[in-house]
Amino acid sequence: MIAIYPGTFDPATYGHLDIIIRASKIVDKLTVAVLNNSVKQPLFSVDERLQMLHETCKGIDNIKITAFSGLLIEFAKQSGANAIIRGLRAVSDFEYEFQMALTNKILNEEVETLFISTSARYAYLSSSIVKEVAVLGGNVDSMVPPVIGDKLLRKIGKQKVGGR
Amino acid sequence: MIAIYPGTFDPATYGHLDIIIRASKIVDKLTVAVLNNSVKQPLFSVDERLQMLHETCKGIDNIKITAFSGLLIEFAKQSGANAIIRGLRAVSDFEYEFQMALTNKILNEEVETLFISTSARYAYLSSSIVKEVAVLGGNVDSMVPPVIGDKLLRKIGKQKVGGR
Amino acid sequence: MIAIYPGTFDPATYGHLDIIIRASKIVDKLTVAVLNNSVKQPLFSVDERLQMLHETCKGIDNIKITAFSGLLIEFAKQSGANAIIRGLRAVSDFEYEFQMALTNKILNEEVETLFISTSARYAYLSSSIVKEVAVLGGNVDSMVPPVIGDKLLRKIGKQKVGGR
Amino acid sequence: MIAIYPGTFDPATYGHLDIIIRASKIVDKLTVAVLNNSVKQPLFSVDERLQMLHETCKGIDNIKITAFSGLLIEFAKQSGANAIIRGLRAVSDFEYEFQMALTNKILNEEVETLFISTSARYAYLSSSIVKEVAVLGGNVDSMVPPVIGDKLLRKIGKQKVGGR
Amino acid sequence: MIAIYPGTFDPATYGHLDIIIRASKIVDKLTVAVLNNSVKQPLFSVDERLQMLHETCKGIDNIKITAFSGLLIEFAKQSGANAIIRGLRAVSDFEYEFQMALTNKILNEEVETLFISTSARYAYLSSSIVKEVAVLGGNVDSMVPPVIGDKLLRKIGKQKVGGR
Amino acid sequence: MIAIYPGTFDPATYGHLDIIIRASKIVDKLTVAVLNNSVKQPLFSVDERLQMLHETCKGIDNIKITAFSGLLIEFAKQSGANAIIRGLRAVSDFEYEFQMALTNKILNEEVETLFISTSARYAYLSSSIVKEVAVLGGNVDSMVPPVIGDKLLRKIGKQKVGGR
Repeated sequence: MIAIYPGTFDPATYGHLDIIIRASKIVDKLTVAVLNNSVKQPLFSVDERLQMLHETCKGIDNIKITAFSGLLIEFAKQSGANAIIRGLRAVSDFEYEFQMALTNKILNEEVETLFISTSARYAYLSSSIVKEVAVLGGNVDSMVPPVIGDKLLRKIGKQKVGGR
Repeated sequence: MIAIYPGTFDPATYGHLDIIIRASKIVDKLTVAVLNNSVKQPLFSVDERLQMLHETCKGIDNIKITAFSGLLIEFAKQSGANAIIRGLRAVSDFEYEFQMALTNKILNEEVETLFISTSARYAYLSSSIVKEVAVLGGNVDSMVPPVIGDKLLRKIGKQKVGGR
Repeated sequence: MIAIYPGTFDPATYGHLDIIIRASKIVDKLTVAVLNNSVKQPLFSVDERLQMLHETCKGIDNIKITAFSGLLIEFAKQSGANAIIRGLRAVSDFEYEFQMALTNKILNEEVETLFISTSARYAYLSSSIVKEVAVLGGNVDSMVPPVIGDKLLRKIGKQKVGGR
Repeated sequence: MIAIYPGTFDPATYGHLDIIIRASKIVDKLTVAVLNNSVKQPLFSVDERLQMLHETCKGIDNIKITAFSGLLIEFAKQSGANAIIRGLRAVSDFEYEFQMALTNKILNEEVETLFISTSARYAYLSSSIVKEVAVLGGNVDSMVPPVIGDKLLRKIGKQKVGGR
Repeated sequence: MIAIYPGTFDPATYGHLDIIIRASKIVDKLTVAVLNNSVKQPLFSVDERLQMLHETCKGIDNIKITAFSGLLIEFAKQSGANAIIRGLRAVSDFEYEFQMALTNKILNEEVETLFISTSARYAYLSSSIVKEVAVLGGNVDSMVPPVIGDKLLRKIGKQKVGGR
Repeated sequence: MIAIYPGTFDPATYGHLDIIIRASKIVDKLTVAVLNNSVKQPLFSVDERLQMLHETCKGIDNIKITAFSGLLIEFAKQSGANAIIRGLRAVSDFEYEFQMALTNKILNEEVETLFISTSARYAYLSSSIVKEVAVLGGNVDSMVPPVIGDKLLRKIGKQKVGGR
């Protein structure tokens, strides 16, 4: 199976990394695809998001990290992928994800969407929550890897005083 | 990926067959595993369920159809599988399936559960609905393949009069 | 619109009566159809359920109260109905009701299922809750009309001591 | 029953048309009411949305297509309607729709809200999805009628090259 | 138990007041905490929201009404609170609230989040709905206390003509 | 606050114990109330369930463990409790719990129901899952305390061979 794991990754959380590690173990090749979306205004640039993923995914052999824009299903076709991997956290996720999966199925029935349930401990973690907590001065050490936490704090202008 | 698609299949519906066909295209080997559950009282015997699956899955090369009892995750390990495939229809499914996926993850973290969304047209189809409709004399032609529909009608003693 | 409002009504609650009154105002004719289901074991006989509905629905001109067995959609066709009315309370209702609506649509596409949202004050009321509360000695005056409350208490052998 | 089917219809999809056709068969008169909402910024003007509905609903006798602004329940009263028709797709719909139905009930208890379940094949279709797919260059032929698909492509400046 | 009931209260509805009254009866001290959020653009200023709460909560002895900004869990710690009270209305609430509760638990495990189910009659009421109805000229008397209704109408420039 | 935490506890899981510990920290007194329900057939007797709770809750000062039958709200009144504590895991829980909370509110409006969200790591754990896993020979060490795990294995006749 050649699979794509698409997302905004703004920034990647331990929840995303959990999915990447688990998916990479069962597929032949995994492309982590960072959405370059001109409409939403992400906190990090595409390059920053790609770099953070590269730094945190070192050592996973069968993955490729890249950006894409346009229709996911077109990108999947061009990549030779036959599956899209999505993490599922909760009911609101589920509805939206289902809608996208069915839409993608209609656009190209050769590509399947597969859902992996997020580990219970990351079940309610999202990039938005991480950014909200960081902006308000909360500690995000349990939510993102150190390298991403540091970049996040620098980006929002709140250097942590003292050690972690 | 070596995957298992477990279920009661009492009987298999077009929804199940849709999952089997789609899963078989993206995995290396798929084992359709019929649960031999001594607690629930199925309408069809394990042998009947195996036979119906064999008849309707002819021509799919990389699948194996077999029965199992005991803990699914143990069966997965013995089969050399690294993934369990489950179809997802709706929210109630989702909750239960999530619970089982997390439980199986705790019991053996080497095996992932992957969910495929059921095709929209089979989104609300279940073995129970099929049996309920058949018992009440309704037409199940759009719900199960002819070979299963016939066996179902014979089993519940309601031969259809005239042609389909 | 000729509509059917089917149910087990074991017994009818203020929630059911709310739906009957509201539906009767907007349809031309409403058939309240008591399911004579041999599988589930209701507390009240079909005749008792019919009688309780007759007593509590006096004065509503355009309704008919009757029993049915077999496939709802067949009964609808025989009654000349073009719509089935269902009350919706909460998410678990929603999933099941959706499944039945789609199944009925497949069985006969001439009959539509229409859902009315239960009034907020009856949103979590069900026949099961009423029976459970009554069996445990609780007061069901806010859940069912007096005539039904009395029959319920007599049925479960717990006469209320003193006045209401 | 005199019913209103309100919506933004920006643009109307096969899902909306499915509801219009089915509702028109069971009510005496159906008003398709296009919301002229000054807050949301629709892609199509009210006039364009009205025209697209007129073109795709030709031949349905008992419907009227019109725009409205202000409180839906006031518009319903002025139109002599006693019911509001809404399509239901999925759980997130359900919550919001329930909230609106109860709010409208509080504002005017003479008007009922009736929900029709969207056909399974359109269960996850929405105007937003259609626009998102079209903007990204995807094919929307299975989502909207040709006349609407053409207008959509022209609006977003992406003429399809070659025949459909 | 020293509890905090946080919210935007823009404006407070009968649903919020119901929670405040019920919570105040079971906790030792209750702090109603108005979120001073610079991101969302509320209709009422923090001072107006505080004043409206003061006027409608007169006579409840063990409550304190105050504003806060920053991380809720930090404010809770500073206030000496060991519990956060949240009202629960429906499924979409539930998901978001769960996510916040788990996030707050990770940030400070000494503070518990407790949910109270909103009374059925206020189950689908929200500040957004109230504002939407008021803007469109609808009657909000059943949704907010008179003193808040008056301020709301003045704020949106729609004085009611004639008596209530 | 004097609170009751009711349940079947057949048997108590780490999820239940998590709720007991967290609730005991914020209430003045907590009664863990084991439901003596003659309808459901529990695996363990009321006495066994009480004993297992006593053994696993040693050291928590402000709790009392006792059995009750009949209406929960009556038991609450007799115990002088003003709150019922319930753990919330997922959506299906939520619906049922809401229904019970509203019913109890109607039966006695002096007693509030408060929900605590189960810790993420126990979010999908239930007594039924524990029993199902144990019956099939799976390891339940991460689901129940050793003392309960041992009793469970003895009860279902499957002594573990060798050490834990």
